Amino acid sequence: MKTLGQIAKYLDGELRGNADIAITRVVHPALVRGPEDLALVLSGNVLELLKQNQVTNAVAPAELGPIDVPNFVLVPRPRLALARLLELFERPAYSIEGIHPSAVIDPTAKIGANTSIGPNCWIGPNTVIGTGCRLVSNVSIGADVKIGNQTLVHAGVFIGDRCEIGDHVIIQPNATIGADGFSFVTPERGSVESVRPNKKTEVTSFNHEIVRVNSIGNVVIEDHVEIGAGTCIDRGTLGETRIGSGTKLDNLIQVGHNASIGRNCLIVALSGLGGSSKVGDRVVMGGQSGLPDHMTVGDDAVIWAQAGVVGNVPAKQAVGSTPAVPMRDFLEREVQLKRLPTMQRQLKELQQAVADLQKKLGQG
Amino acid sequence: MKTLGQIAKYLDGELRGNADIAITRVVHPALVRGPEDLALVLSGNVLELLKQNQVTNAVAPAELGPIDVPNFVLVPRPRLALARLLELFERPAYSIEGIHPSAVIDPTAKIGANTSIGPNCWIGPNTVIGTGCRLVSNVSIGADVKIGNQTLVHAGVFIGDRCEIGDHVIIQPNATIGADGFSFVTPERGSVESVRPNKKTEVTSFNHEIVRVNSIGNVVIEDHVEIGAGTCIDRGTLGETRIGSGTKLDNLIQVGHNASIGRNCLIVALSGLGGSSKVGDRVVMGGQSGLPDHMTVGDDAVIWAQAGVVGNVPAKQAVGSTPAVPMRDFLEREVQLKRLPTMQRQLKELQQAVADLQKKLGQG
Amino acid sequence: MKTLGQIAKYLDGELRGNADIAITRVVHPALVRGPEDLALVLSGNVLELLKQNQVTNAVAPAELGPIDVPNFVLVPRPRLALARLLELFERPAYSIEGIHPSAVIDPTAKIGANTSIGPNCWIGPNTVIGTGCRLVSNVSIGADVKIGNQTLVHAGVFIGDRCEIGDHVIIQPNATIGADGFSFVTPERGSVESVRPNKKTEVTSFNHEIVRVNSIGNVVIEDHVEIGAGTCIDRGTLGETRIGSGTKLDNLIQVGHNASIGRNCLIVALSGLGGSSKVGDRVVMGGQSGLPDHMTVGDDAVIWAQAGVVGNVPAKQAVGSTPAVPMRDFLEREVQLKRLPTMQRQLKELQQAVADLQKKLGQG
Repeated sequence: MKTLGQIAKYLDGELRGNADIAITRVVHPALVRGPEDLALVLSGNVLELLKQNQVTNAVAPAELGPIDVPNFVLVPRPRLALARLLELFERPAYSIEGIHPSAVIDPTAKIGANTSIGPNCWIGPNTVIGTGCRLVSNVSIGADVKIGNQTLVHAGVFIGDRCEIGDHVIIQPNATIGADGFSFVTPERGSVESVRPNKKTEVTSFNHEIVRVNSIGNVVIEDHVEIGAGTCIDRGTLGETRIGSGTKLDNLIQVGHNASIGRNCLIVALSGLGGSSKVGDRVVMGGQSGLPDHMTVGDDAVIWAQAGVVGNVPAKQAVGSTPAVPMRDFLEREVQLKRLPTMQRQLKELQQAVADLQKKLGQG
Repeated sequence: MKTLGQIAKYLDGELRGNADIAITRVVHPALVRGPEDLALVLSGNVLELLKQNQVTNAVAPAELGPIDVPNFVLVPRPRLALARLLELFERPAYSIEGIHPSAVIDPTAKIGANTSIGPNCWIGPNTVIGTGCRLVSNVSIGADVKIGNQTLVHAGVFIGDRCEIGDHVIIQPNATIGADGFSFVTPERGSVESVRPNKKTEVTSFNHEIVRVNSIGNVVIEDHVEIGAGTCIDRGTLGETRIGSGTKLDNLIQVGHNASIGRNCLIVALSGLGGSSKVGDRVVMGGQSGLPDHMTVGDDAVIWAQAGVVGNVPAKQAVGSTPAVPMRDFLEREVQLKRLPTMQRQLKELQQAVADLQKKLGQG
Repeated sequence: MKTLGQIAKYLDGELRGNADIAITRVVHPALVRGPEDLALVLSGNVLELLKQNQVTNAVAPAELGPIDVPNFVLVPRPRLALARLLELFERPAYSIEGIHPSAVIDPTAKIGANTSIGPNCWIGPNTVIGTGCRLVSNVSIGADVKIGNQTLVHAGVFIGDRCEIGDHVIIQPNATIGADGFSFVTPERGSVESVRPNKKTEVTSFNHEIVRVNSIGNVVIEDHVEIGAGTCIDRGTLGETRIGSGTKLDNLIQVGHNASIGRNCLIVALSGLGGSSKVGDRVVMGGQSGLPDHMTVGDDAVIWAQAGVVGNVPAKQAVGSTPAVPMRDFLEREVQLKRLPTMQRQLKELQQAVADLQKKLGQG
């Protein structure tokens, strides 16, 4: 429970109405059920709902101006206010206190104070986990792993040998950190080598034998990173695969061996980053986008959803489509393609006009 | 074991031959090994196999007419017959009976009669599971979860706090229900905001800070839904993410926070649905298709494989390609593009003809 | 520890310098820290680093010729040398010895000699596991499964009833082998059937009811296969889904029911293979590529990243784009599209020239 006055202060918003109202829930305006509910208004589209639901308390965008609700707080950036409100009203994932007797912890592992190890977890030899961490359940952690403080590891996560996880990291369920890289070599020239240089159509050498390249490196995840459910980050071959501090990966993302992702990146679900790819700071990658092996993406670049990158992306550039091009080029081509029917009509008209002229001049 | 007569009746098919034949297996015509095998013929392509394998019992499409097999059943829609046959010959996934001693069940959780809780499962406080359910093994279920009756939860599945699962639901292995949404906000205008409105190429504002929006909502999965292996359904931010009754999700699908999917949809593997996307009833989405945040798809729409939706899709419309367009537009553009070489030739011819005319008129 | 002489011999390389040097680590040239480190040089780009880091031992491509390092080995194909070096310096994933007391093994299951069953694993009835296998932790294996010898099953993997896994197979964490196929049928003509034949835009029949087709088949994984983290391989409906010997699947791949993949294929992350698709031997599929139901890909074909196959792919053909075409056609279209602005300019010039001619001839 917080008072509306406390909330207004925390949001740095402008309060109108009763500061002493007790708020117990933050809800969508459609879901307001009582006088302790606070409706969050993200846009003017829901103003009608406020009346219908007899809403008495609301947070709303300053740009809407005073709204027709007894008590309200105006804020400049409502999605930020939502984030702040959900800090106040957070409902953390349940995990047991202490170490569950069903957890299997190697005697050489070290577990920090106030760290919770849930049911059916396994922790391998020489692994060191800091203080205030939570391993929810059915988590598997190999040997020689280091985990910092205040890190949350959800159910079913695997963290492989020698990986290093920072402080305040969140790893969503069923993510895999530190599987082996997808690294193979053919003793002779392989099929892709025969078509890659000029994008040929005919394959002329063949993968009769495939030799595995073992992965002896690790994964390093810096502080304040979030890893989505089902996401897989492969270990480096010799060195490391690194995720920079503050970076957030959505669900079901593939990060190949030796990839390096900078700080404060946002990478949306089902994207794939090839081996040894190098992503700068504050890069945004849309859903289902792809970055091949060894490609570089500069700081602050934006890669649109489903884009297929085929060359290095400069800093601050937004690219889209497959093969990915700067958005300006993409839009120009779209314009050109839309003119195709007109061009075809114009061509026909010209053919007729020229035929007429030829006839007139006795060429017909 | 069923007799061929019982089978014909169950399939509502037309029997020719011996109704008393005992059938113990349904197999592909290539795999028939004995007089108790029933071959399922889905098309005329396999008729030759029936002879080669001395097949004595078969189910075949009515459109083929009488076939050269001693005992057979003709059915109007053979894939439906396959479904019906596999109801008769189903081999349900193995799970233990009762509650395994290695399962960790919070004392406040309630488990219904005839529900099986397999090895190394964990069930959190206040969770309520109905009757006749099966949790196969290594399943993790958080706090305050509700699961209906006759629901099957396969190995390695996670179901997060406060989620609600209906009756007769099937959740395939390693699926994640109720991870946190991928929801973040920059305190100032972010990089995507600087390029989105007009799809600009140059990023002019930067994600120097990223603030997490906690997810306190849940996931609601209605009756008769099936969730594929590895599929991830994020919880709502404030409210719910909902999967309507009868809908089937394939493997490795991402469903973002607050998304809503209607009834009887079919969504194929590796598709992604963004946060707050809204999908109607009976929608089909092909494999690797993508639906961005906040987009709406009308009832009975069909989205082809790998399509990248960029606007709302009307009811009953089939769209494809990236950016996705109605299939008619897609096909028209393909036709136009195929004419490009001809257009280039025609242009060249016109240039020559005009040059000739100009020469003739003394303009050359 | 190996001597440089032993290493040169194992690599079949040409040694210059001291054969007796003891090597304890193989590292990237940037990470050399002492006289027992061996730097692996994959290309001339890192020669500068060798000096900077005072590297004393290196493996380098023969094409670079003698390099300025006291002791070095020249090899013809350096990525192959990397593979061989990492055989010598492999650091196998940690797993416990023997059978952990927390593992739940059905009394009817049979476990071979020297096989390790890690914490919190479950093994169902009548399952047979060979010798020298390792199940790391939290692995779930159903009933009647067969696993060969020397196979490694990482944490969180599920293997369903009746599946068969060969020798020397590696299954990365959280993979799912043998979930049910995504197989459904509508009793009446469904929505996709109404638009598929001619890729129509308007859906005219509707999926009012969806009937499940149970999967009673299995998955067969031959020897020396590797399955990536999070990858899902569905069981066959009646028969089998098969992965041929030596084939390597990356992370987060979907393989539909009854698919068949040949030998020595390489399939990159986030690719999807539809039900009953048939892939030949030595096929390469790039990341995020898609193969629909029932399509065939010939031996040695190469499918580029993000390609969307829409027809059978002949042997030895490289295809790309969506819809996928031979790379020659793709490149030709790219050339044509790049000419569009020129074509538009030429059209305009022709229109002006023809107008001038018409004016001159009194048609204006």
